[in-house]
Amino acid sequence: FESKLPKNEVSIFTVMSEMATQHQAINLSQGFPNFETDKKLKKLVNKAMKNGYNQYPPANGVIALREAISHKIEALHDTFYDPISEITVTSGATEALYCAITAFVHPGDEVIVLKPAYDTYEPTVELSGGKVVPIQLKGAGYELDWQEVEQAITSRTRMIIINTPHNPTGKVFSEEDMLKLELLLKDTAILLLSDEVYEHLIFDEKVHQSASKFPNLAERAIVCASFGKTFHNTGWKTGYCVAPAELMKEIRKIHEMTTFSVNHPMQRAYSEYLKDERTYLDLPNFYQQKRDLFLNLIKSSKFSYTPSEGTYFQLLDFSAITRERDTEFAKRLITEHNLASIPVSVFNLDQKDHHQLRFCFAKTDETLERAAEILCTL
Amino acid sequence: FESKLPKNEVSIFTVMSEMATQHQAINLSQGFPNFETDKKLKKLVNKAMKNGYNQYPPANGVIALREAISHKIEALHDTFYDPISEITVTSGATEALYCAITAFVHPGDEVIVLKPAYDTYEPTVELSGGKVVPIQLKGAGYELDWQEVEQAITSRTRMIIINTPHNPTGKVFSEEDMLKLELLLKDTAILLLSDEVYEHLIFDEKVHQSASKFPNLAERAIVCASFGKTFHNTGWKTGYCVAPAELMKEIRKIHEMTTFSVNHPMQRAYSEYLKDERTYLDLPNFYQQKRDLFLNLIKSSKFSYTPSEGTYFQLLDFSAITRERDTEFAKRLITEHNLASIPVSVFNLDQKDHHQLRFCFAKTDETLERAAEILCTL
Ligand SMILES: CSCCC(=O)C(=O)O
Ligand SMILES: CSCCC(=O)C(=O)O
Repeated sequence: FESKLPKNEVSIFTVMSEMATQHQAINLSQGFPNFETDKKLKKLVNKAMKNGYNQYPPANGVIALREAISHKIEALHDTFYDPISEITVTSGATEALYCAITAFVHPGDEVIVLKPAYDTYEPTVELSGGKVVPIQLKGAGYELDWQEVEQAITSRTRMIIINTPHNPTGKVFSEEDMLKLELLLKDTAILLLSDEVYEHLIFDEKVHQSASKFPNLAERAIVCASFGKTFHNTGWKTGYCVAPAELMKEIRKIHEMTTFSVNHPMQRAYSEYLKDERTYLDLPNFYQQKRDLFLNLIKSSKFSYTPSEGTYFQLLDFSAITRERDTEFAKRLITEHNLASIPVSVFNLDQKDHHQLRFCFAKTDETLERAAEILCTL
Repeated sequence: FESKLPKNEVSIFTVMSEMATQHQAINLSQGFPNFETDKKLKKLVNKAMKNGYNQYPPANGVIALREAISHKIEALHDTFYDPISEITVTSGATEALYCAITAFVHPGDEVIVLKPAYDTYEPTVELSGGKVVPIQLKGAGYELDWQEVEQAITSRTRMIIINTPHNPTGKVFSEEDMLKLELLLKDTAILLLSDEVYEHLIFDEKVHQSASKFPNLAERAIVCASFGKTFHNTGWKTGYCVAPAELMKEIRKIHEMTTFSVNHPMQRAYSEYLKDERTYLDLPNFYQQKRDLFLNLIKSSKFSYTPSEGTYFQLLDFSAITRERDTEFAKRLITEHNLASIPVSVFNLDQKDHHQLRFCFAKTDETLERAAEILCTL
């Protein structure tokens, strides 16, 4: 048989996490916290199981959870999404991204993707016969040249995928960025897929600019979000997407085939938990302390960097340390120094090496201290 | 935009379950139990959460769970699957089916599907540009004419999908059936997708004939299974598939994009729970009592039937009661009689109406009694 994705290899996140385990290395590679999710949430899951919420939930999500999501978005971004027709709970944001791309990308369609980019966008587009048109974020501030985006638009452009706060650079789109995007897409039929899984991890008093906040974007946008990233339980595999009803109808056709529905006890727990907005409003502070601690600890190292504006990732430039390829250096960092990270070239379409590694700082202070100690010896 | 699945409507399972809720009807429609999953399993989930298994598990499943699955298959079917390269945990069997079809069906490929058939097979094949070639199960015993299958095979046949025990008819394939299939596929490049989610629900001392048991089938087979169906917790959304490594490699490329990984606490719980084989070996008995009770209770009704050989579904023929279309009768049964079922025509490619409704008997005895009482008044 002929492979439909001949280029695809095992995910870098799997490779690096497995190597980390094998070498008992400190694992700052794959994006997940090494501290615990709130006990309250675990208790709510337990309560849901006891209360008998163990059979199929509604395919598009528990109604109470969709209502809680609707309230949250309205409170934060002043936009109303109808829980019944415009919100769907998915098996992590990964499934939401997959369904959104698969629902709308036809063979021959072009999809504009900002690079570096999360590694499932591109193969998902290709699986539907689409073509990725990459635009590189540039310079120390990972700036996007909106004129370049404008020039990349053709009659075949079906979709543009953005990600703010941005994995792996930590770049956060400004209001100005979003207004430019609005202007660009106005009067086109181009859809916007907005990956906002790190919406609550944002620093230095920056404000998250959700696509749902801008009416001329929201009317064409599928916004994806993640409870795993927000509530420190990436292993519970629950996320969601919101979109205008007419788009959501098509996304649900795919969702029905990929998973049909999402873990019921976890959905019940999140429904309750979301009632207290401090559970997510306190996050910027919490993670900014992590970022500041990490950057402070590596101040004396040979790495250079632009402080992450959001997400729980920090890129470090290692040009002053070695001329190795980032993939080689990342491997050697595990095998020789017991520290796991992600080489950034895997996020680049052309695998272009910008001499950067990505470190996840969603870790206990102690772990960050041990990691920084290693980084300072290099 | 142009819909990629213009024919697709909201799933019949969603429609009927929602109608049932709305009319406070007894719900024998969607396939799930109305009794509780084992307390032990809930405790194991709780323990897993407490033990900190709340972050991403390995993308292809917790190793201990894959090992438990391997042991189970070896004990039951005398075939060894390598936990590392030949077993993948999925978000329910639904995701396994989706990934298997999507990994191998190319535009223009033909896929043989036995009708009636579970409702995601066909749109999933079509999404990949494949064409479903339907073969109808016939007569009171839902017999398959293997010669018809043979005649349906062309140079474009990529895959054949079987389902034993069969939803919705309850038909169970015999050893002879499997040997005929083996003969048919020998020396071809046709893949076998075997949906065995009801493997443990099988009656009258029949033996489940897994595709994994027949070497000439196993070498080309993707076998899909479900913990939700087996352990009375369809809302925990955990299933798996097994296949030769070379096939599994391609399936995992799709899985990585659709969901990446599956709920971690639930996987840990199943790993422990599977150690006691009585948890599934006792099931045929348990469900046969349900089937027998239900059939006994409706003996005096005007419905006619062939007793279900497996699954937790029973088809009832209503020709002696009304000449309505099955979809109409099913709706009227909810609105006028407070009893929800599934019209069988939705499982037929041509929506052909054979005057049958499907009833799920995975219900408490009391519920079955109340349902039967209604059926006897018709
Ligand atoms: C789904 S595994 C990858 C997790 C993640 O978002 C990342 O590390 O970038
Ligand atoms: C995934 S909802 C459908 C459940 C089921 O298998 C059925 O009712 O046939």
